[in-house]
Amino acid sequence: MKAFLDNDFLLDTVTARVLYHEAAEKCPIIDYHCHLSPREIYEDIRYENITQVWLGGDHYKWRLMRSAGVPEKYITGDASDYEKFEKYAEVLGKAIGNPLHHWSHLELRRFFGYDGILNKNTAPEVWKLANEKLQSDGYTSRGLIMMSNVDTICTTDDPVDSLEWHEKLDADKTFPVTVLPAWRPDKAMNLEKETYLDYLAQLEKAAGMQISSFEDLKKALRARLDFFAAHNCTLSDHGLNYVMYAPATEKEVETVFAARLNGKLPTAQEEAIFKTAFMTFVAGEYHDRNWVMQLHYGCRRDNNPTMFRAMGPDTGFDCVDNYAPSAQTAAFLGALQEADKLPKTVLYSLNTNDNAAIDTILGCFQNEKAVSYIQHGSAWWFNDHFDGMTEQLKSLASLGYLAGFVGMLTDSRSFLSYPRHEYFRRILCRIFGQWVEDGFYPEDMDTLKEIVADISYGNAKRYFCFAKKEI
Amino acid sequence: MKAFLDNDFLLDTVTARVLYHEAAEKCPIIDYHCHLSPREIYEDIRYENITQVWLGGDHYKWRLMRSAGVPEKYITGDASDYEKFEKYAEVLGKAIGNPLHHWSHLELRRFFGYDGILNKNTAPEVWKLANEKLQSDGYTSRGLIMMSNVDTICTTDDPVDSLEWHEKLDADKTFPVTVLPAWRPDKAMNLEKETYLDYLAQLEKAAGMQISSFEDLKKALRARLDFFAAHNCTLSDHGLNYVMYAPATEKEVETVFAARLNGKLPTAQEEAIFKTAFMTFVAGEYHDRNWVMQLHYGCRRDNNPTMFRAMGPDTGFDCVDNYAPSAQTAAFLGALQEADKLPKTVLYSLNTNDNAAIDTILGCFQNEKAVSYIQHGSAWWFNDHFDGMTEQLKSLASLGYLAGFVGMLTDSRSFLSYPRHEYFRRILCRIFGQWVEDGFYPEDMDTLKEIVADISYGNAKRYFCFAKKEI
Amino acid sequence: MKAFLDNDFLLDTVTARVLYHEAAEKCPIIDYHCHLSPREIYEDIRYENITQVWLGGDHYKWRLMRSAGVPEKYITGDASDYEKFEKYAEVLGKAIGNPLHHWSHLELRRFFGYDGILNKNTAPEVWKLANEKLQSDGYTSRGLIMMSNVDTICTTDDPVDSLEWHEKLDADKTFPVTVLPAWRPDKAMNLEKETYLDYLAQLEKAAGMQISSFEDLKKALRARLDFFAAHNCTLSDHGLNYVMYAPATEKEVETVFAARLNGKLPTAQEEAIFKTAFMTFVAGEYHDRNWVMQLHYGCRRDNNPTMFRAMGPDTGFDCVDNYAPSAQTAAFLGALQEADKLPKTVLYSLNTNDNAAIDTILGCFQNEKAVSYIQHGSAWWFNDHFDGMTEQLKSLASLGYLAGFVGMLTDSRSFLSYPRHEYFRRILCRIFGQWVEDGFYPEDMDTLKEIVADISYGNAKRYFCFAKKEI
Repeated sequence: MKAFLDNDFLLDTVTARVLYHEAAEKCPIIDYHCHLSPREIYEDIRYENITQVWLGGDHYKWRLMRSAGVPEKYITGDASDYEKFEKYAEVLGKAIGNPLHHWSHLELRRFFGYDGILNKNTAPEVWKLANEKLQSDGYTSRGLIMMSNVDTICTTDDPVDSLEWHEKLDADKTFPVTVLPAWRPDKAMNLEKETYLDYLAQLEKAAGMQISSFEDLKKALRARLDFFAAHNCTLSDHGLNYVMYAPATEKEVETVFAARLNGKLPTAQEEAIFKTAFMTFVAGEYHDRNWVMQLHYGCRRDNNPTMFRAMGPDTGFDCVDNYAPSAQTAAFLGALQEADKLPKTVLYSLNTNDNAAIDTILGCFQNEKAVSYIQHGSAWWFNDHFDGMTEQLKSLASLGYLAGFVGMLTDSRSFLSYPRHEYFRRILCRIFGQWVEDGFYPEDMDTLKEIVADISYGNAKRYFCFAKKEI
Repeated sequence: MKAFLDNDFLLDTVTARVLYHEAAEKCPIIDYHCHLSPREIYEDIRYENITQVWLGGDHYKWRLMRSAGVPEKYITGDASDYEKFEKYAEVLGKAIGNPLHHWSHLELRRFFGYDGILNKNTAPEVWKLANEKLQSDGYTSRGLIMMSNVDTICTTDDPVDSLEWHEKLDADKTFPVTVLPAWRPDKAMNLEKETYLDYLAQLEKAAGMQISSFEDLKKALRARLDFFAAHNCTLSDHGLNYVMYAPATEKEVETVFAARLNGKLPTAQEEAIFKTAFMTFVAGEYHDRNWVMQLHYGCRRDNNPTMFRAMGPDTGFDCVDNYAPSAQTAAFLGALQEADKLPKTVLYSLNTNDNAAIDTILGCFQNEKAVSYIQHGSAWWFNDHFDGMTEQLKSLASLGYLAGFVGMLTDSRSFLSYPRHEYFRRILCRIFGQWVEDGFYPEDMDTLKEIVADISYGNAKRYFCFAKKEI
Repeated sequence: MKAFLDNDFLLDTVTARVLYHEAAEKCPIIDYHCHLSPREIYEDIRYENITQVWLGGDHYKWRLMRSAGVPEKYITGDASDYEKFEKYAEVLGKAIGNPLHHWSHLELRRFFGYDGILNKNTAPEVWKLANEKLQSDGYTSRGLIMMSNVDTICTTDDPVDSLEWHEKLDADKTFPVTVLPAWRPDKAMNLEKETYLDYLAQLEKAAGMQISSFEDLKKALRARLDFFAAHNCTLSDHGLNYVMYAPATEKEVETVFAARLNGKLPTAQEEAIFKTAFMTFVAGEYHDRNWVMQLHYGCRRDNNPTMFRAMGPDTGFDCVDNYAPSAQTAAFLGALQEADKLPKTVLYSLNTNDNAAIDTILGCFQNEKAVSYIQHGSAWWFNDHFDGMTEQLKSLASLGYLAGFVGMLTDSRSFLSYPRHEYFRRILCRIFGQWVEDGFYPEDMDTLKEIVADISYGNAKRYFCFAKKEI
């Protein structure tokens, strides 16, 4: 019997242990997609207690607590920080099979040196230990990043963002980690939202021009793309219902946009037409700038109206949307290819049933401009667990070229999430170890280590072409 | 090599064996969803031979035999009972990997003490042994239930049912098992059926009122809900194509219903509107009465027109329907939540591809009124096999709170199906054992036993709030 | 640790080894679906080097190379044969987890006696060895087939085909392998294609009659079906988007067809109507002739417009299409059943999410005319890998009668692909071995060997009723 979460956690073969400890473990982290605040990095913030740093904004943990019947008072309500921590500890102790059980314990081990089990009984000792650590040297936002051997971070930023905190971070030569913006223009695309015109007003201000047509919108976005590019951005990100393709004439698109400017919300078909035109435009821009386009889809957000009104988005009320026609995804990429405007692309679906569709779509658009020009993104969000990661890796291996994969990201709002990279790398080495020891792949340790290091670090470095911060 | 189906069947680790034998095995059974006849329980019936009790109404077995090319004569035709049994034995002997192979052998072991293998060669000896047992003391419907350590049974009952057999069972203090009705109003909802008006006539009679409008229908249903509640019913059940959400005004719904009363069948859209209104109404009633709503969907029934004409429904001609938009399911629950009318709900899809959608929808609607207020039902019908159960359990663990799961049911028409609970519990303990011995979860046997006992029994007991029969 | 791809490759239990070496290995191959050229078989062609026989037309390998960023020059371009081989060797060496890694090494072992690893370093020695072998006795198309213990081959043939090479092969008594045509009328059905009328002209010529109506088309097809039947064809094959069912009157179908004859392309609905009528017609013909109907679906083809223009179809630019409503598939088969025109049918979807839907549809239409009258086809194309085959086998076992399965086919364009049957049989024996040694199925080696031999060979022999070549 293996001990719980020991040094060889997940590494059930000798080969896996060698690969992890000799190739994966030492690689720095390129966290190319997360939701950290650049301001919080710059300000090098410190947390008062573990509830604030751990439970403060983590809707994964909130969902788990709600599923266990914990009253909202102890989740986002007015209970004390200790009470909240205690409730989480109690639920976590019984959360067998949930990734939070692994993540939370990895975080307690790596950041706080706690080797025990967190549950109802141990809550007081963990509370004490963690809070003491949090007041000691190095336990700030920057310190936690440094502790985690992070090389590069990409945040998630709106086109109207001033990028002031990125500028400050870039100017601060005492902090060696590269922190780059990533372009996320969802608000500029989602014309079905009630708040769309308000957003356009912000965009007009940021771009220094009026937006009276789709042509204007494209011009404004181009100005902001230039601005982001000047801040070393090379990466975009989109949250879509699904990757749609409903081509239309420029005139039709302008008509839909003009109606929206006049306050008329679009029909479903008009929405699809507009979004197709929008995505086609930005994809072309990414292509011309050698940026990467990330498409996240398969998600239905904000499903609980009561809680949405009380708490807003990203509070733990989202689910898988199982409508994502692969034919439209393929048609969209095909149209970009035909126009010679297909950028490097990373596809992520929240629905694991889409794995095979994605992995076979990739193969239709690969080319010599990069190894694995089109990528299947790492198991995303709800799928970011042992089985989900394993399935994504095996599907990509079976249907594509796993050795070219750009690997893991945290997608997190927390400075304590870097052990997710470790979790991913251990799972990768576990799979490789099993394949080798089962006679599925030769025991060629040099090649295996090369592939492991590439997926852990090297591929991302080559693929994204991030500018390294100058110090 | 483990021997076939021995005492440690499915229990491949020491941990699994301890958990099963010390925590799971001794728990009573709460069979909260089945299709047993309350009359057959009350009348304490006895079977002439094993074909009658085992093959008489079991369309799982019929399908398997047809797949092996067995003529219908030996399945539902006029062959002798022994010939039918012999054919089943022959097919079963080669049914490697099919759950019937496990279930049938578990049933032979548990009820008839037969430790061998049933196949073509052993058919005569099993026939003899089983038939002798069936004539001995305790081998009646009630005896088989008692032998299985059953605590509570919920049957499946139409709103027009008189519940006379439930009344008699409740009055008979010699039988200690609680037998409760469950409310299944499919016929009151399916207005697209040719027989709908005939059904309404029955409902009018049962409710003692005329039904001239949807408002009347609701009133009549409310009367029957009260009647079921008076018989300790706290559980409903629905068979849906998919969980739809097509909201409309009361007037639109009344128009559709009025047209149907005039003999006009609905369009697909009208059907969706009516069913949405129907489900919204009954869900609200369940909420107000603290009942549980079970939604079974993802099934296309009666696919073989020839056989349907010859044999009617539930004869082995159903399949998975892969159309079930998760967006509508989430929207339906969201609308109930918004109206503060969301009851405790159990979602079951026949399509295992829906597992992740279901498990993420759950998380959007959990609350403090119960542990795991919204549940992902146990692997249903065709999925009720080793891989299907394993996937359901792992998906729920990865995406939700497995420790709050209400666990297994038989969904069966046979008094011999209780070993399915054993099968489920063994699989549960197998998974836990593997996790523990692989270092995925601590070897904290007290907590593990608590979780196993809760999923086997305790959660269902707390969740469903069944009234215990008074003796 | 097991050595890579040794004699017991994939056979991880004693039981698996016994089953494979004593039952599976010696069975001849019935390759009931492939894309070999009957002319190339007849002409007993020889290849100049391994690139020509291995990389010349294999779009699986091309995709893998493109995914690794190899320039098209080295794939289908004007690089030398050696350069192409070298690039493939380099990519293959790192293609961990991809089925090509297994297939390619199996082919090198079985045909060329090469026991090493193919990668960048070994490319020169493999090139030399393989090319020498290719010039030696027996290394011709027929020789490679004979070497592989092939009993029967079915090619894939258009209704207009003269079948001249099949006639010559049948007449040539020096070649003992049965080579039969299979009827693939996709071009006669796909009226939405620009080239449809050109095709009809060819069909008119082949059938010796004019086609002025759908009634005529059916008559022409009937003539060609007779012609194929006279050449011992008993097998059809269809490539469909999905198995649709949109019934219409004869008049409506004639109207759509007449419009097409006049140059008007159909709407989506008209296309569905026509294809439903077409499939209903041919299915009835198959039924009456006791042919088997193979339905391949779930594929979106030719997704890369640039490459399609440059290279045409079947060049590695296809993907999974995830739209295939199981309700329509069931309705189509149900309508055939109702008309007593349902032929033996094999369903293949490129989307593994359809496995359970297929396996439950099967069960609705089984009958006594054959063991497993409706079949779930072997894991197809992209799914033809370790996990894909395992899932197909386990799904069929859980939901149907695996012992009646007709087993593997190559679906290949290459004379070197026969080891895919070996790969399949090893996986089958692996699964059985695990089940037996885990106590899931009795250690009844006689029955197990019988089932293994049936799935490897016997079931296909009985199911397809191929005429054995007379020598």
